[in-house]
Amino acid sequence: MNVTIHGRRRHVRTVEFDARRNAVRLIDQRLLPHRFRVVAKRDYRATARVIRDMVVRGAPAIAAAAAYGLAQGARAFRGRSLPAFARHVDRVARALLAARPTAVDPANALRQVRAAIKTGTTIAAQQRLALAAARAFADASVAECAAIGRHGAALIRPGMRVLTHCNAGWLATVDIGTATAPLYAAQARGRRFHVFCDETRPRCQGASLTAWELAQQGIPHQIIADNAAGHLMQRGEIDLLIVGSDRVLGRTGEVANKIGTYTKAVLARRHRVPFYVAIPLSSLDWSLRSGREIPIEERAASEVLGAWGVRRRGGAPVYVRIANPGSGARNPAFDVTPAELITGIITPRGIFRPRELWRHRRRLGWPPR
Amino acid sequence: MNVTIHGRRRHVRTVEFDARRNAVRLIDQRLLPHRFRVVAKRDYRATARVIRDMVVRGAPAIAAAAAYGLAQGARAFRGRSLPAFARHVDRVARALLAARPTAVDPANALRQVRAAIKTGTTIAAQQRLALAAARAFADASVAECAAIGRHGAALIRPGMRVLTHCNAGWLATVDIGTATAPLYAAQARGRRFHVFCDETRPRCQGASLTAWELAQQGIPHQIIADNAAGHLMQRGEIDLLIVGSDRVLGRTGEVANKIGTYTKAVLARRHRVPFYVAIPLSSLDWSLRSGREIPIEERAASEVLGAWGVRRRGGAPVYVRIANPGSGARNPAFDVTPAELITGIITPRGIFRPRELWRHRRRLGWPPR
Repeated sequence: MNVTIHGRRRHVRTVEFDARRNAVRLIDQRLLPHRFRVVAKRDYRATARVIRDMVVRGAPAIAAAAAYGLAQGARAFRGRSLPAFARHVDRVARALLAARPTAVDPANALRQVRAAIKTGTTIAAQQRLALAAARAFADASVAECAAIGRHGAALIRPGMRVLTHCNAGWLATVDIGTATAPLYAAQARGRRFHVFCDETRPRCQGASLTAWELAQQGIPHQIIADNAAGHLMQRGEIDLLIVGSDRVLGRTGEVANKIGTYTKAVLARRHRVPFYVAIPLSSLDWSLRSGREIPIEERAASEVLGAWGVRRRGGAPVYVRIANPGSGARNPAFDVTPAELITGIITPRGIFRPRELWRHRRRLGWPPR
Repeated sequence: MNVTIHGRRRHVRTVEFDARRNAVRLIDQRLLPHRFRVVAKRDYRATARVIRDMVVRGAPAIAAAAAYGLAQGARAFRGRSLPAFARHVDRVARALLAARPTAVDPANALRQVRAAIKTGTTIAAQQRLALAAARAFADASVAECAAIGRHGAALIRPGMRVLTHCNAGWLATVDIGTATAPLYAAQARGRRFHVFCDETRPRCQGASLTAWELAQQGIPHQIIADNAAGHLMQRGEIDLLIVGSDRVLGRTGEVANKIGTYTKAVLARRHRVPFYVAIPLSSLDWSLRSGREIPIEERAASEVLGAWGVRRRGGAPVYVRIANPGSGARNPAFDVTPAELITGIITPRGIFRPRELWRHRRRLGWPPR
């Protein structure tokens, strides 16, 4: 997407590759929205580290970073033995996978790059194939987001007030985003509408990342406390909800997403507001048979007990403790929304009712060919 | 309630009066939970100022502060003319009322003190009557909270997990609290249970004030993001909700309370978790005919765009901006929960179904005798 830096407008992707310097370039998302900085990592170990430290986050974005990291590691190999090269590629892939072991998308990305490598007969050819496959992965991810936008844009009518939760924007992908893709596509068609961003405690991705993205794209928006959406729906001030997802069960239509998503779906149902979930195909899980099988990550209490912010514009973010010092917290990071509360799943292949995903599984890429 | 300061346990009320120094003593709630400090205000103008600046907050607590402020102002009068004294009392009452013009409880408190003053025949007698009436108001408020506790304690069975929202604790009243009164009463009866405190963005009264109170009273508790309650209810981890209220409509049973209360009531209904509202009689509004007539205060965007916290234990609270600097916010401070979602209203006169308040209005003090 386009970002304005020091008054100049530039196109950037969340994750890019600089072949001349053999560097993975990423937006440092820990500094947003307060500072915009692109960091270049010239070594696959450094790339693994920024994935682990959440400099880059969002499953499609870390998958692209891992794919580029594997190409980067492969290209840095200076030996002449093909078996030694293969062992090196193994080592690089393991390091990148270990950086965020729970997400499924990086594993898929690394598998694709390694499959491409194996089709080469020389080290030089395999190095070229690694980079080509990583670029193809990133480009395919962008194409999927663009397709989500084409299908989803039809839902956004002029004057609508759309609520989104957390950040499933272009910062969570290589570009365009998933939940935000219909917004950007509707904007490109000249439609005017208003977006409410849930703050999304405890990590506040809505207030920081989604609001920053929308501001960069010039889409009118306001941040609201996670507590406020119910009141706004009561007053008829929300017309549509679109969120992303970390995992959609192809067999049941259940949706795992950032904590608070389920609450919004319950409110949307009560007020008859359509509730959509936008996902790339890689977020579909065809194996689990019930949402109760989805492990819900419990994160550090410190996220709930305080917040990160800046004391003055452009300053470095600092952590402040909000809560009573003697008190602890529960911090489930995700919840599961049942299919019955979801109007539709927006995919690159069209919009489906959640219970119809299984029937359309071939069209949605299952089983993989 | 009891507070432990520097290792020593002391009984304090949120608002007290020091007759010897003619001072209103209040806990400075802007510093909690990070610092415990009682401030003494020796002049009614200073008392009005701390009400305005939210050093003291919560309708019953500011009502008591206003009552004491009026006694304080009356007692400071040094003239000998009864008409001049009456004009002085007028002036003091107006200043105290203007400090927080929207709450109804301070107006009631000031009316009671002024009515008592008028029964005296000398300035000295009227000054004594003012203080006696202010003390009587505060004591009656404590007695009401104790009665809420007696009625509500029966709802809390051993092992229960209770969710509360915002702070309707003893810090919001003179002592004991409203939503917390059943908790403290159940604890006094030896029952063990667990409390979840909603953080309550944007002002975080749950994470700061309620958690501090519960820690002081030794009640096991955890803070959760406002987003997390839906997930916990899905998993069967919440058995009961108790919240306070700023206004309950006696005619319809609708409840105005801190933003996010309505959302919790919707979730509680879906999961068949009982939802109770605890109030003193002064929170009953017998005049409005619909919740839509209740004005919903929209507060400053800065509350949503950032947070107050400390950088190290015991430090002074600082404001940090969390949100994207270019983005604005909507900040409705209250919402209205319909009677159909409320299991019962816990009052000093017993527990009533919300739609039965009108039928029991005489027992609930309407019309006033």
